[in-house]
Amino acid sequence: MNIDFSNFELDHLGIAVNTIEEGLQFYQALGFDKYEIEEVPSEKVKVCFLSLRNQVNIELLEPTSTESPIAKFLAKRGPGIHHICYRVENLEQLLQEYKKRGIRLIDETPRPGAHNCKVAFIHPKASGGVLIELSEKRG
Amino acid sequence: MNIDFSNFELDHLGIAVNTIEEGLQFYQALGFDKYEIEEVPSEKVKVCFLSLRNQVNIELLEPTSTESPIAKFLAKRGPGIHHICYRVENLEQLLQEYKKRGIRLIDETPRPGAHNCKVAFIHPKASGGVLIELSEKRG
Repeated sequence: MNIDFSNFELDHLGIAVNTIEEGLQFYQALGFDKYEIEEVPSEKVKVCFLSLRNQVNIELLEPTSTESPIAKFLAKRGPGIHHICYRVENLEQLLQEYKKRGIRLIDETPRPGAHNCKVAFIHPKASGGVLIELSEKRG
Repeated sequence: MNIDFSNFELDHLGIAVNTIEEGLQFYQALGFDKYEIEEVPSEKVKVCFLSLRNQVNIELLEPTSTESPIAKFLAKRGPGIHHICYRVENLEQLLQEYKKRGIRLIDETPRPGAHNCKVAFIHPKASGGVLIELSEKRG
């Protein structure tokens, strides 16, 4: 299958932080001007989307429990980049094609994500240590 | 000073890999179709820029010596995201402003980078563990 990549683009970078406040302080000094905080109870995180010129491209992730995957990431590696998110179309079809190509997936079918999107993760073992999220806006 | 961010945008993500071949295999399966390999002797790395629809957004970095900063990164953390690069204008002026705002810099003045750009790095201590590169195209 040929994949249609005409809508495939970088959506945001997820960055694990000890506290949103600390991360916000830095990115605001850097020049990011808009932000929005929401809690994702299922993932036990508080997230803060930051944008520059209305492009959302940073998501700060602060754990709300020691059980959070982000808490585990912080304990193991310290603060830093946690994932790359690409925006796609036809996520379901793309996942099937990736599976055929032998790419190891965490989610073989999409699940609900933040911002009312459908998301799926590629396994970091497949991508040399990089956790990749694919996200599709719901119609 | 007000910073003019009209040209500030994400340029690429630098990813540390054990071998370019391994990284290429994954990103080509993912759909990236164009690439270009060059060696940067001063940094003791071989780099591979990958793009999707002519947007360069991934740079794979393979060490060519155990003395390479990338070799040290791999030894400490394993393969994964090494840096985020933003494309800017007026890099020199921006660095001065960031210094005034108390952002800790690795380079207080620009130095030559790949692709005939001027670059400077922000210290990861400033940014909660994220190494940020700022890059300006030479006129």
